[in-house]
Amino acid sequence: MQFTNGKSQNNICTMQNLLTASENGGEVSFHGSVHKIRDMGDFAFIIVRIIDGIFQCVWSQEKTDFDIKDLKEECCAKFKGNIRADKRAPGGFEVELTGIEILSTPNAVMPVSINKGKLNATLDTELNYRPATLRSGILRAKFRIQEGIVRGFRDYLHSQNFTEIHTPKLIANASEGGANVFKMDYFGKKAYLAQSPQFYKQTMVGVYERVFEVGPVFRAEKHSTARHLNEYTSLDFEMGYIDSFEDIMEMETGFLQYTINLLKTDYKSELDFLKVELPNVEQIPCVRFSDVKEMISKEYNRKVKDPNDLEPEEELLIGKYFKEKHNSDFVFVTHYPAKKRPFYAMEDPENTKYTLSFDLLFRGTEITTGGQRIHDYNEQVEKIKAKGLNPDEFESYLMIHKIGMPPHGGIGIGLERLCMRLFNDENVRHNSLFPRDMNRLEP
Amino acid sequence: MQFTNGKSQNNICTMQNLLTASENGGEVSFHGSVHKIRDMGDFAFIIVRIIDGIFQCVWSQEKTDFDIKDLKEECCAKFKGNIRADKRAPGGFEVELTGIEILSTPNAVMPVSINKGKLNATLDTELNYRPATLRSGILRAKFRIQEGIVRGFRDYLHSQNFTEIHTPKLIANASEGGANVFKMDYFGKKAYLAQSPQFYKQTMVGVYERVFEVGPVFRAEKHSTARHLNEYTSLDFEMGYIDSFEDIMEMETGFLQYTINLLKTDYKSELDFLKVELPNVEQIPCVRFSDVKEMISKEYNRKVKDPNDLEPEEELLIGKYFKEKHNSDFVFVTHYPAKKRPFYAMEDPENTKYTLSFDLLFRGTEITTGGQRIHDYNEQVEKIKAKGLNPDEFESYLMIHKIGMPPHGGIGIGLERLCMRLFNDENVRHNSLFPRDMNRLEP
Repeated sequence: MQFTNGKSQNNICTMQNLLTASENGGEVSFHGSVHKIRDMGDFAFIIVRIIDGIFQCVWSQEKTDFDIKDLKEECCAKFKGNIRADKRAPGGFEVELTGIEILSTPNAVMPVSINKGKLNATLDTELNYRPATLRSGILRAKFRIQEGIVRGFRDYLHSQNFTEIHTPKLIANASEGGANVFKMDYFGKKAYLAQSPQFYKQTMVGVYERVFEVGPVFRAEKHSTARHLNEYTSLDFEMGYIDSFEDIMEMETGFLQYTINLLKTDYKSELDFLKVELPNVEQIPCVRFSDVKEMISKEYNRKVKDPNDLEPEEELLIGKYFKEKHNSDFVFVTHYPAKKRPFYAMEDPENTKYTLSFDLLFRGTEITTGGQRIHDYNEQVEKIKAKGLNPDEFESYLMIHKIGMPPHGGIGIGLERLCMRLFNDENVRHNSLFPRDMNRLEP
Repeated sequence: MQFTNGKSQNNICTMQNLLTASENGGEVSFHGSVHKIRDMGDFAFIIVRIIDGIFQCVWSQEKTDFDIKDLKEECCAKFKGNIRADKRAPGGFEVELTGIEILSTPNAVMPVSINKGKLNATLDTELNYRPATLRSGILRAKFRIQEGIVRGFRDYLHSQNFTEIHTPKLIANASEGGANVFKMDYFGKKAYLAQSPQFYKQTMVGVYERVFEVGPVFRAEKHSTARHLNEYTSLDFEMGYIDSFEDIMEMETGFLQYTINLLKTDYKSELDFLKVELPNVEQIPCVRFSDVKEMISKEYNRKVKDPNDLEPEEELLIGKYFKEKHNSDFVFVTHYPAKKRPFYAMEDPENTKYTLSFDLLFRGTEITTGGQRIHDYNEQVEKIKAKGLNPDEFESYLMIHKIGMPPHGGIGIGLERLCMRLFNDENVRHNSLFPRDMNRLEP
């Protein structure tokens, strides 16, 4: 009988392993893809892409019995060679190859060049050929940093006693009683794709007090803008026993602080490669919705068109204003009008035209919506009616208010939007591995 | 201008905090739900449920100016009192209350009793009243352990140089060319819900070599069994540059070993509460599909009905056999017939009737399917045709084979099934927070 014991002989060789080996020189072996070949006749430079970086190898006829003609870009291979430190080389070392064993050879050349430093492709080309373009240094670095943000979210919330949950994406009612929801047939019944884990994360506050979820959400929005996706990754948390909705903003600030530090330590090479300017999150200014509307209108001599919501241009100006006046990339805009907030948003007892809610803007783009929720049963039923909805349709949700809930609230962060602003990209699609919009379901 | 600084004054008091405080006694304050009240006339026992446990408080008329009549089960409140160690008490301490401030009062009594130790409810009742039943000790403990398993999965793979990815759930083609897929309208086009991240995780092996994803998958299976869900959480990983498909089984074994240890350290109170017997995963036996079929047939004098797949009864007997003969709760069954494996499964070069694939059984139930994938373009195109499918429909997927892929493979683990077996539950629905089956879309 054969047994596994959890100890694979299949080891990974990382950039750090190679850098360490290069200090004393000697033989190394590694595997990877051939990122680029520069054939110089008697010898060739081979740029190899390994799990977490690229570096230069030198092939020469006299050092191997391998014919360079057999090697193509994007071949996967096992390599052997002698390593030496070289400060001029990317990665800080170079390998003189002594052996190459090809594992696989591609069937076609790359449809887009990915080994020229910059990715010279239109957005459509970048997305149409995602399997190829994601192999470029720039996109590898971006989505590694995206991983870091998600890690930061989880690790920070875990340290704050949050429990991770997994809630259903197939639901019986359009969560927020609204439009923009995908419908489908579910064994002869109607079902919807969840626009957010809202009702479920609130339910779980009754169970674990503090919960979070990272997962896909779906919005059937029929417009195609540079900052909307029809499927995106939402970072959600919800917490009970808050003293005010400011506790939620403090928790989000703590997450951002923790995550920026995590990126600095664990994703330094990616940040350096992309020359990312990390935002300052020591403190985040908070300003009321009605105040900031007025401030921006005065400062930029601009007429307010929509008194109940922030216009995209206003968001940009708010970003600019707070960067200039407070050197802050972030700003919390609080107390949104009740008209524009969903039925579960708690009204401000001091002025019920407004809610105890907020958006977080990052460099002029909304990346978070959050706030305190109604926890009292009668109050919630009344509010549903006042919004012209039927409480009977929310029976399942209202069970939580019936059986008792603490004061609570939470947020949802759009992961791709946060990344878009971090990298100063003009289109959010750059920050989804395989984006979905009205015209795009593939690859 | 107001600022957040990431430092909330809203602190959590955990069971560990209270236990530590009880050593010296003194005043403590905490918040939580009233889990149970036993009114004894002059005094009352109040069981309070806090973020990570329950414990007993004592209320008496002379110590507070609070009228016990105002307190209901499932009230949320802030409490003050004097703590003292008490070894007989659950949690190891007791609090004599000096102050109670009610934050919210439920509108109705609990529809199911959750404070009697065991949850005396049928499966349907348990699921219909999920917002209530999840507050019971038993379900709180179970889903905390489920969180631990997911943490173990991520943390272990992170330590093994895997990168986390987020892939789309809305896709243009039924991934495996098969049935059991949910269809929907997507802006006038047909779309499907992903049955697995299969194609995307393979694509990402070309980018990061080792990747994983934790996310929902959807199966439109039209049967209702005790071990099927129509939406479940899949733990997927995929790794490149494998020497054989055994590397994948070693990686899964490593994950299980790491996770069992994590549960022992970080989820000890939940394991103790549920009296969970953790499986032994020092080593896992591996047996070929055809051999184990024969073994079981001989040992239990049983006729083989389906030569190409394991029958559920066979799985149970395999579980029994390996527990008895090898004291193992797990067994890898390898080399499944090509007939029953999808078109991307790599055939065994020694006998192409079989594939380089495996299932992992845990206590007689399949919890994982995995294997090596075809990485060569021509081989993959031929295999698609041989399965009676049209390669044109897989153009987007085949791009990865065209531009070059290393030898690779991976697995998908059904999270709820793994939990079901860990807790020896008879129905997988117990292990989904809000299960989805043919008849259930709510709550």
